[in-house]
Amino acid sequence: MNKKIELKHGDGGLHTNKLIKDIFYRNFNNEILLKGRDSALIDLSKINNHKLAYTTDSYVVKPIFFPGGNIGSLAVCGTINDLTAAGATPYFLSVGFIIEEGFEIEKLNLIASTMGDICKNNNVRIVTGDTKVVEKNSLDQIFINTSGVGFVKKGFKPRQISIGDEIIVTGSIGDHGTVIGIERFDFGVDMNLKSDCAALNNILYELHEFLPKIKLMKDPTRGGIATILNEIANDMVVGVTIHENKIPIKNEVKGITELLGLDPYYLACEGRMILIVEKGYGNAVVNELRKLHNCKNSQIIGIIENSSSPYVCLETRIGGKRLLHILEESMLPRIC
Amino acid sequence: MNKKIELKHGDGGLHTNKLIKDIFYRNFNNEILLKGRDSALIDLSKINNHKLAYTTDSYVVKPIFFPGGNIGSLAVCGTINDLTAAGATPYFLSVGFIIEEGFEIEKLNLIASTMGDICKNNNVRIVTGDTKVVEKNSLDQIFINTSGVGFVKKGFKPRQISIGDEIIVTGSIGDHGTVIGIERFDFGVDMNLKSDCAALNNILYELHEFLPKIKLMKDPTRGGIATILNEIANDMVVGVTIHENKIPIKNEVKGITELLGLDPYYLACEGRMILIVEKGYGNAVVNELRKLHNCKNSQIIGIIENSSSPYVCLETRIGGKRLLHILEESMLPRIC
Repeated sequence: MNKKIELKHGDGGLHTNKLIKDIFYRNFNNEILLKGRDSALIDLSKINNHKLAYTTDSYVVKPIFFPGGNIGSLAVCGTINDLTAAGATPYFLSVGFIIEEGFEIEKLNLIASTMGDICKNNNVRIVTGDTKVVEKNSLDQIFINTSGVGFVKKGFKPRQISIGDEIIVTGSIGDHGTVIGIERFDFGVDMNLKSDCAALNNILYELHEFLPKIKLMKDPTRGGIATILNEIANDMVVGVTIHENKIPIKNEVKGITELLGLDPYYLACEGRMILIVEKGYGNAVVNELRKLHNCKNSQIIGIIENSSSPYVCLETRIGGKRLLHILEESMLPRIC
Repeated sequence: MNKKIELKHGDGGLHTNKLIKDIFYRNFNNEILLKGRDSALIDLSKINNHKLAYTTDSYVVKPIFFPGGNIGSLAVCGTINDLTAAGATPYFLSVGFIIEEGFEIEKLNLIASTMGDICKNNNVRIVTGDTKVVEKNSLDQIFINTSGVGFVKKGFKPRQISIGDEIIVTGSIGDHGTVIGIERFDFGVDMNLKSDCAALNNILYELHEFLPKIKLMKDPTRGGIATILNEIANDMVVGVTIHENKIPIKNEVKGITELLGLDPYYLACEGRMILIVEKGYGNAVVNELRKLHNCKNSQIIGIIENSSSPYVCLETRIGGKRLLHILEESMLPRIC
């Protein structure tokens, strides 16, 4: 099959309907979506929870396929992780595809099948969607928007951060950003490095007992952990110190980022979470996290400190200090 | 001000934050959004309703500004109207902007201010959003995705359509499509025709008493009323007959569509609703609808007929019959 998307696939008529049925219904298969309504109708009476979390993100990553994932896995995982960071079990997603005329339908199917698989594995349903097609050269291949609806787990209650609270990262940093860098600069290096792209909602279930000890969760996507920690420091008016020798970074990431002049602390992760946990509970939470296949390399990487002027400080391996400022300009656009 | 969007406005750092605060917080101003979380948190305990409606659409209209609206008004009204068609009071919207590098910030502000105004006038809040910027020539100016969450009004219960049920349209057809056609073909004609783009959620409040008599609502956007009526005929396995002399079409639309070789029955409306109401209640519903400023020209345009093979038939002014088939290929891409 080498069929291509044509403008008529986006006109709302026969061909749009066929595309939706062939590609999206088949891959996202669930009874709410298959009703084919413009609005999904969802009965919430069985969801005994009043606190709704609602989020959206658009994905414009380049290239759209990369080691460890594609634009579709980013879109689904990104929205699942945003809800997770809010302490919410993800339930329902919407998805909007904007596709360039001439895009191969087989590629679209591959993207949709990845999205469908991740949803299935994480008990999330794509219940409503939209497809638009634009003329050749009006868009670079395909962009995807997802939004998501979840309900905040009882027991999760973000609280004021205090001095001594511990900072955890759930795995190695910068993998996704580095992979995109390698692809973008067309290195042609053959290595095993893959994007860390993954859904992290299992954290909420595994940490069940410790949920009340989690004060804050954030996924360090665009701008990496340096940006996220700066946001936390500024919002909460605290200092943050993290330790280079505790932060998991893969050797390939170290090597390539040095070569490309990228800084791993500012590179996007797409399957990692930063957790701020109550002082004294860091080790217990890390032990729980390490039971999860996608959080095996969880580490306490730093601590919240007292300061009336916010900062993020990296203590280097040799005992030096480097301030990680808020990102002024991205090293790598279209990372997600 | 002639400032332009740069790639750094989309990198998640300082400049993204400034853009979000300057443009989006100011125009979409509400306390949920202003918390600045990745996921909006919404307390549903006061919404005494379990039936959630959830929808999404992307907007790629060209040109982005046109008489009667812009891409932002389309995005907000489109999502409000999709929820309305499901019988749901729209509450919360998400919005994702994808912007081409070099786009004028003043234009973005104009779009956002239109969106903010429509939300305010319709008691809807944009509670979460996302902004991405892509390099020059990777996208044609700006695309917007909106998703929306609402709750189905008690009393609204779509039911099986029966023979004799009456078909209502809430105003003149084809205005939006014709306006886009005029702009696209660069006619330079100076006329008063404007897009019908409007939010229609007031229908739900005005028709309160008659809600149980409404069997189905659909907004005839892409593909126009011919496409929507074909969907209804096919889904319900019925025939549909509509009468040319009862369908409100503006003279400008008649003239221009003839000139351009467009068919108004297939042209998008962005502020009209098709209602199927219980036999005998058409006049009463039309009388109520006409009280609304945006439904003044409501008309009963046809009737549901018995047929085991679905059809949509237009009875012409001179008594002829024309079958309106389902759209095979759009006359005008990027209409919304």
